This record gives sequence, structure tokens and C-alpha cells, in this order.
Amino acid sequence: MATVAVLGTGVVGSSWALVFARAGYDVRVFDISESALAATTTFVRQALGDLTKEDLAGPDPIDVVMARLHTTTDLAAAVVGADYIQESLPERVELKRSFYVTLDELVSPLTVIGSSTSGLPASSFTEGLRNAARCLVVHPINPPHLIPLVEIIPAPWTEASAVERAVVLMRDVGQSPVTLTREINGFLVNRLQSAVLGEAFRLVEDGVCDVDAVDKAIKDGLGLRWFFMGPFETIDLNANQGVSEYCRNLGPMYENLAREQADPRSWSPQLVAKINAAMRAATPMEKLTEKRGWRDRCLASFVSAKKRVLGARTA
Amino acid sequence: MATVAVLGTGVVGSSWALVFARAGYDVRVFDISESALAATTTFVRQALGDLTKEDLAGPDPIDVVMARLHTTTDLAAAVVGADYIQESLPERVELKRSFYVTLDELVSPLTVIGSSTSGLPASSFTEGLRNAARCLVVHPINPPHLIPLVEIIPAPWTEASAVERAVVLMRDVGQSPVTLTREINGFLVNRLQSAVLGEAFRLVEDGVCDVDAVDKAIKDGLGLRWFFMGPFETIDLNANQGVSEYCRNLGPMYENLAREQADPRSWSPQLVAKINAAMRAATPMEKLTEKRGWRDRCLASFVSAKKRVLGARTA
Repeated sequence: MATVAVLGTGVVGSSWALVFARAGYDVRVFDISESALAATTTFVRQALGDLTKEDLAGPDPIDVVMARLHTTTDLAAAVVGADYIQESLPERVELKRSFYVTLDELVSPLTVIGSSTSGLPASSFTEGLRNAARCLVVHPINPPHLIPLVEIIPAPWTEASAVERAVVLMRDVGQSPVTLTREINGFLVNRLQSAVLGEAFRLVEDGVCDVDAVDKAIKDGLGLRWFFMGPFETIDLNANQGVSEYCRNLGPMYENLAREQADPRSWSPQLVAKINAAMRAATPMEKLTEKRGWRDRCLASFVSAKKRVLGARTA
Repeated sequence: MATVAVLGTGVVGSSWALVFARAGYDVRVFDISESALAATTTFVRQALGDLTKEDLAGPDPIDVVMARLHTTTDLAAAVVGADYIQESLPERVELKRSFYVTLDELVSPLTVIGSSTSGLPASSFTEGLRNAARCLVVHPINPPHLIPLVEIIPAPWTEASAVERAVVLMRDVGQSPVTLTREINGFLVNRLQSAVLGEAFRLVEDGVCDVDAVDKAIKDGLGLRWFFMGPFETIDLNANQGVSEYCRNLGPMYENLAREQADPRSWSPQLVAKINAAMRAATPMEKLTEKRGWRDRCLASFVSAKKRVLGARTA
């Protein structure tokens, strides 16, 4: 694959444009709005400038990367002949459905179309399309130019070869693709996040601890391991004989906890107000944008450090 | 507080000895076994050598830190006059109960006694003791000399001032203490881990994805944020107007997921065997010890990098 089309240039689409261009691909960037396209170009140049060459910017000078971006408001010009399309439209199923119908007339049967949707299964907007077998979800964690994980979820009618091509492409651009065997609510990432948030909200609602204690339990505790080892890898090292022994020793405890945690709740306005008060006391509303910039600069530093350390220390 | 007693010198107690000595405290290290004490001394020297001065070793030369360790097999010599006691005996309630009865005769009413237990509430082994009001759980994540989080859980009869003194001491030695208002199964850390493991095991059992996909979803995705931001801080940045807007937009989705996830299961031998097979294919049993060393060296590098980056970048 050599030519990629990035359709829709919000926060996610703009970061995707950087991912593909950094990896050496020609990137056609489509949006209906000229100003959105201009903002994407500005964003990519700025973000590349923030990253150092040794870190996550890739090996090429900024101008070489920028020259690979071709913005257009003409959908046909973006997608005709593209080997891969990354669609990042707003999360409205009717909008996506009608857009995919238009797309279906333009693309060749060789093109794979990945949707950045975080919640809509591809089956909800690709049924009956001529190219439905090459449509699937390719969901990043925002922003993909800093966070490598991508979850790939085929619709029931997606061809295995389309899944495989998406996986190969994602690896080639430096992302970390994982594949689900079928569509499931929340996919993988939001299901794991849901498990943590459900317990976090419950503990605060029940007065067991405050908001800050939950955040610290992750960022000063569990998150330090999960930065470079998944939950299975983590427990595998926590018993002499590995995960089997761990499960033998602690399975009953976790089963008891799981029973206590099988207590789904809605997030009440009172609870949300309490959490919001804690967050706003720590970071006033007008500082949120600034804090997002801080988060992304920190992420870039940490992901770079991780590459360097893991590259130097093989397990 | 100036003198700390570390009782029990397994993996956890040995790391605690390092934590207190590195911070400048005189540390009396007690174990019934001379060889265990010798192993602790060796461990602390080795671990300090692995850490650089700029990193997590603390400001003092290794010999100065080592001179603060006083090993003994005489319990009275360890605890009489100690300002704080960190107990890290094996996780058997009868053993702890009889040990605390002995301790109760020796310690002054000024001494706070924290237990490293990961699962036993302090109420299960301190009821009726003369010093019960100064006993509580001070549970680290292993190893505490690399992972700062400590969860502090009072028994119903623990005095507020004892909790406060434990919090102040933990901060003083560079740990990150969080306090629970009451005893609860799994405390905070294992409840959050349980939520993640429950969903991880379920997804693999249901064939949605494989073991490696779950691990990558954390270490290449969610864990990159959770390394330096808790779950509340994370979602607070994921909507323009912060956590209130996030909950308004996504609360219903998470409530649906929570209902699907309210499905407690025991970890079947077949499922554990499947997960074990995946883990052993990646890391053979005989390489587990080596991998634990790799984990700890990586942890040290990452925690150091985190201190440096967050020190340089205030939010």
C-alpha cells in the first residue's frame, strides 16, 4: 500500500494524517471544510515540531513529511485509487451510513476502509454495500500519533483478508493493532475502561475513598506496571510458578470480589457533581485546554522513554 | 519519627527496609532467621547499586544508607522504642494474631504498627489488644522501593491520629499514601485490579480476543495514560467541559456495559490452562525469575523518567 486517504479532519483524523505521513505514505486528506484542512496542516507541522527526531517524529525532516500531505475538499480526488481509507467522521450512524453509500460508488474493490468510530459497529453502517466485505472498524486511542494501540473489529461480513491488510498496514505505520473476533459493545478498550470506571465510581459513591485516592491508586500504583505489561503479564510474574499458581492461590478471592462488583449503577447527578467538584478544585475549567497540552507532551516523553528502555532491555 | 522497625524480611519487608533507610531513618530489621536477615542486607545493597543517585537511590552514598540498617533476631530489641513498626509477616491470620499479642506486650503506646497485608483487615488480628487503636494496614504494591502507592486502611478501632501519623510518615519516605475510610474486601488496589482481570478473563473465555490482545490494550493503550493520570483525570480531559460533560455523553453507554459486565465467573481450570499456555509460549517457566529482574529494572527506569518529566512539566 502506498496511498492512504484520511477522511474527516477533527482531532482524530488530524492525528491519523500525521501517523501515515510520518511513516512515509502519501496521504490525501479530505474534509468538506477548507479551514478544517488548513487546521490539520497546522496541527501536523506543530506536532512534528514538538516531537524530536529520536522520539516519535520519525526519521524524515518536517518539510519532507509535510510534502506527503495533500488536502482536498473533493472526495473523489481523495479516495479514487487509494489503497486504504481511514474514515474519522462524527459519531452519528446516519451520517456515516449515507457517507459510506457515497464512498461505495467511488472506491475500487481493492480498497480497505477502516472507521475510527469508538462505538458504532461497522455492521451498523455498511450493510448491503458493494464493498461491505472491505469495511471494518480501526479504532485508535486518541491521539494515535502518540498512543500506538489500535483495535480492529470486523463486521460479520468483513473478509479475513481485509482484516489482515489492516493489521499489516497498522504495524507498518508503527501502531500496535489488536483484533477482535467479532463485534461487541464497547469493543475491547472501552470495556476495560468501563470495568475500572464502574468500580471507581462505586468506591467514591460508597464513601470508601475519595476521587484523588482512586487516581493515585492507578497512577502511583497499578498504572506503573500497566505502562509496559498487560494485566495477564503482570499477574504471571506475581507467583513463583506463573499465572496458574496465581489463579490457584487468588482465584477464590477474585471470584468473591467479582460478586461484590456485579453491581451495575447509573452515574447519578449527585455523584457526578461530587466528582466534578473534586476535578475542578484540582484543575479549573479554564485550565483544561492547557492541561490537555501538558498530557500530550508528557505522553510523547513517556512513550519515547518506553521505546528507548524496552529497546535496550530485552526480557 | 526517627526509628522504624521492619518485622519480617521476605520480598516485601526487604524492600521496606530499603525505603526507610534511603529516606534517612534508622531501621531495625527483625526476622527469626539469621539467613533471611543476611539476604535482606544483600538485597538492599544490590538494589541500591542498581539505582542511580539521580534516580531512586536517594541522595546518600550506599555505605551511609547501609549503616542505618540494624538486623536482629531479638524482637524486643527491634521494637522497644521504635516510633513506627512495619510488619510484613506471611499472610496467615493465626500467625499474625499471635505475633501481635506478643508485640502488644513490647511496644509503647506511642508506636504505630502498620501491616503490609494485602488481604487481611487489621480487625481480624488486632481485636482486644492494648495497642489496637494504633494498629492498621499499610499495604504497599510490591516492591515499595520502586512503586510509591501505599494504601492505608484503619480497623474500626484505629485512632484518627494513628492514620494521620502513618500518612505523614509515608509521605516523608517518598511514598504516595491513600487512605480508605473503612475496611473493605480487596482494599482499593485489588478491587481495581479485580475489575480489570474479571473483564480480561471474560473476554478471553468468550473468544472475543486472545490473551495478547488484552495485554496490548493495556500496555500500548490505556496504560500509557494511567502511568501518570488516574481514571478520573483521564476522562476529565476527554470532553471539552470536563468530567460532567463526559458523564452526560457517555454515562448511558457505560451503564449498559456495566450491566453486561455484571457477570461474575469463577476462573475455570480450562480457561486458566489456556491463559497459562499463552503466557508460557511467550515466557518459558524457567525464564520467569529473569523476567522479574527485567520488570524491576524497567520499573526503576520508568519511575525515574516519570519523576524527571513531571518535575520539569507542571500541569
